[in-house]
Amino acid sequence: MSWRASVITLFPELFPGPLGASVIGRGLDNGAWALDTHNLRDFAQDRHRTVDDTPAGGGAGMVLKPDILADAIDFAAPTDDERPRIVMSPRGMPLTQQRVRELAQGPGALIICGRFEGIDQRVIEARNLQEISIGDYVLAGGEVAAMVLLEAVVRLLPGVLGAAESHADESFEDGLLEYPQYTRPQSFEGLEIPSVLTSGDHGRVAKWRREQAEALTRTRRPDLWAAFGKENP
Amino acid sequence: MSWRASVITLFPELFPGPLGASVIGRGLDNGAWALDTHNLRDFAQDRHRTVDDTPAGGGAGMVLKPDILADAIDFAAPTDDERPRIVMSPRGMPLTQQRVRELAQGPGALIICGRFEGIDQRVIEARNLQEISIGDYVLAGGEVAAMVLLEAVVRLLPGVLGAAESHADESFEDGLLEYPQYTRPQSFEGLEIPSVLTSGDHGRVAKWRREQAEALTRTRRPDLWAAFGKENP
Repeated sequence: MSWRASVITLFPELFPGPLGASVIGRGLDNGAWALDTHNLRDFAQDRHRTVDDTPAGGGAGMVLKPDILADAIDFAAPTDDERPRIVMSPRGMPLTQQRVRELAQGPGALIICGRFEGIDQRVIEARNLQEISIGDYVLAGGEVAAMVLLEAVVRLLPGVLGAAESHADESFEDGLLEYPQYTRPQSFEGLEIPSVLTSGDHGRVAKWRREQAEALTRTRRPDLWAAFGKENP
Repeated sequence: MSWRASVITLFPELFPGPLGASVIGRGLDNGAWALDTHNLRDFAQDRHRTVDDTPAGGGAGMVLKPDILADAIDFAAPTDDERPRIVMSPRGMPLTQQRVRELAQGPGALIICGRFEGIDQRVIEARNLQEISIGDYVLAGGEVAAMVLLEAVVRLLPGVLGAAESHADESFEDGLLEYPQYTRPQSFEGLEIPSVLTSGDHGRVAKWRREQAEALTRTRRPDLWAAFGKENP
């Protein structure tokens, strides 16, 4: 069984979209992962196909109705479906590479893409939905956020990245931002590749890269640097 | 002059993609913003259309060549182009709603989508590129990250969201996560809408929502809560 994503959205035509390209798309084609989409509007119960209503207590925007969304969830992921049920939401727990790794080790995910002002809190509780945020900013809907989560997870699945594209040195895998990269030409607009990188001395290269990664993390991301210090005292 | 995005990518066919849908797509159609894409491979100089090379100093993956990328940047945003030049990268400064607002108030952005292991550090320096990260996880490329940034910015541009979709109460606008939302039906699987929200007492509704937003932020995002406390002593 490959890793399976089910997506509930008002815009199913957006999928796979960017997830159909490059290594992620090849993984979809060769069965490393599977994707099904469900149009929330298909679960509406009136002839206007209404999925939202005004917020109780007033305020701007519209809220996705709990009954319609619950029906869509129960269809896409019946009660014996053990995949985590995720709502993309700026209110959620921040997505981290650690959470991405955990999701990649599981059977897949049901992902609900919000639109409008949000979704009714009762369906979050009644269907045990996990709210996940991809960052501290606000989008027009959850679709691109779902693509972010899926791209991050799928690239870790077996057979998606080739051996030449290992994850060993990249940002967050060891709690540090990645060191700067250089490639040919040797001289670009008068700027040279740092000589240590062309010295052939693997020990010096590794030491230089580590120092660069630590210095970058310390100056650019004091929050990551503090967490790194706690784990590497 | 509308807000203008120029995107340098190896996958121009992915754009506008999700950015062509819903309010963001209508904004593109009605001229609230404009988008041009540039295929990095068009700037390659050999008949294999090579854009990358192996990392100096060794290691996995490939690095985008500085000369090719500089040519693409100079074409898409000549030196008198005052738009910020952004590289989507997990090494970057985290994208925040504050940064989104700043970008929305400017003339637009040039956005470079990385692939492979990264881009040569010298072009970052020589072309004054700002590295921006959408979150602490790793993607297969910068394309979906660029869509996240653009969707967040474009929804703030004049004429994109209707008056009914105001930003006033949403997460991060006041430093707190958003309070829970409810809508009809009054009873969903035995769960009722909290009675305060149907009381008609606007003062009590506002107070309840504020308490909920503070409690959610405190328990779910102690980092935001700490920052909020400093600004609201």
